[in-house]
Amino acid sequence: MKKKPLILVTNDDGISAPGIRALISVMKTIGDVVVVAPDSPQSATGHAITINSTLSVNKINIDPDVDSEYSCSGTPVDCVKFAVNEILDRRPSLCVSGINHGSNSSINVIYSGTLSAAVEAGIEGIPAIGFSLLDYNWNADFEPAKSFIKKITLQVLANGLPEGVILNVNIPKLKENEIKGIKICRQAKAMWMEEFDKRQNPQGRDYYWLTGKFVNLDNGEDTDEWALEKGYISIVPVQFDLTAHHAIQQLNSWKLNENK
Amino acid sequence: MKKKPLILVTNDDGISAPGIRALISVMKTIGDVVVVAPDSPQSATGHAITINSTLSVNKINIDPDVDSEYSCSGTPVDCVKFAVNEILDRRPSLCVSGINHGSNSSINVIYSGTLSAAVEAGIEGIPAIGFSLLDYNWNADFEPAKSFIKKITLQVLANGLPEGVILNVNIPKLKENEIKGIKICRQAKAMWMEEFDKRQNPQGRDYYWLTGKFVNLDNGEDTDEWALEKGYISIVPVQFDLTAHHAIQQLNSWKLNENK
Repeated sequence: MKKKPLILVTNDDGISAPGIRALISVMKTIGDVVVVAPDSPQSATGHAITINSTLSVNKINIDPDVDSEYSCSGTPVDCVKFAVNEILDRRPSLCVSGINHGSNSSINVIYSGTLSAAVEAGIEGIPAIGFSLLDYNWNADFEPAKSFIKKITLQVLANGLPEGVILNVNIPKLKENEIKGIKICRQAKAMWMEEFDKRQNPQGRDYYWLTGKFVNLDNGEDTDEWALEKGYISIVPVQFDLTAHHAIQQLNSWKLNENK
Repeated sequence: MKKKPLILVTNDDGISAPGIRALISVMKTIGDVVVVAPDSPQSATGHAITINSTLSVNKINIDPDVDSEYSCSGTPVDCVKFAVNEILDRRPSLCVSGINHGSNSSINVIYSGTLSAAVEAGIEGIPAIGFSLLDYNWNADFEPAKSFIKKITLQVLANGLPEGVILNVNIPKLKENEIKGIKICRQAKAMWMEEFDKRQNPQGRDYYWLTGKFVNLDNGEDTDEWALEKGYISIVPVQFDLTAHHAIQQLNSWKLNENK
């Protein structure tokens, strides 16, 4: 009998978040599931790792069907590193991260702990997918996403992924029959316009909350923002070779080694 | 008289680190300097931002020649966002980050708070450079790097940078006359092999320190690792469009929209 694929599940909203529970419920139908996820919310931690303090990890059990669940005091990227090096007895066939409560489209891929966990798995040579639902609500309805998540996951297991590439999947907040389909996209050019909300503490000292407004600067019809706006699920293939290869020739025209 | 360029300086080792002090000393000879940097070490925080807690910012004065220095309780990326939105009265001509105490070559660009600060400036449309010296010592000798940093900075101010590109500059730990020159490079394919150092606290509970061994998987002679090994300063142009454009066609061959 063919061995079931081993699937590592993580997220950034914390191990008890409804989003990761929904993702686990899909992955259980596909393979053997091991969960290693943060013990508290770690949104917007990007690719942070814990080197100036220590990590603690606890075996817990939330889903009675899953043998191996671990909560970790670190970041999502820490969770992947710890899982691969300390917990798993064989190499996982796949790492999935999410389902994030909220969008990780366009530039958000860089801030996202969910996606950074998938990127870390990719760096370690493990096929990886980050899933996000465009609903920040803790009690968001993840049901409509499940059949699509299963389909994408099975395709990745069947086809593999190009070396150095992971998938960033964003799912619109729609009913299942309203989702128009799946589009392969590029990352839209977008940014956040920050607004710092200045307040005073009871001792009269200023402090700030970081807030912001998302601005899509991209009119292209091949972007993730466009697809999501039109009711499609977007898949952006994401790479961690950050080299701007197209810029190398231009920089070589600079006279950096003269007068030396 | 031509106005001097406004230069925003930040780092991830904290505002009092010798590395940022060396960088400030170079930038003072080029333009008007504003420093907004973390009030404590923030190494390996990647592109993390502070959304689940608040920020505090204090005007301080370490360098008597610099009017504007601010220490911030947040991450390097928070510092850039706060500087641009709350402190600077005009758009900076340049953002420089560093000089990091230690390498940010190859895959380290993703974990590095120093480089993430530069990337954030790039996202906001500001030309940006991250500088790192291959010496983790707090009392590293930054003197040999200074003339090269000045030369690279002047070239960026004169030529600008391609849209969506920032520079990742790594400097070998050598005497000035031993540095062979400057090479434009691609990011080497490399990774960390983690080793978790397991210990017990006084109450008998396990905890872990994340440690690791750097592994260069790339034999190319056009990489940053190769250049640094040979005694050159490496410059990698870095982009924040993470789309793996080459993978889009392959993923489009998958049958993701059938049986739907």
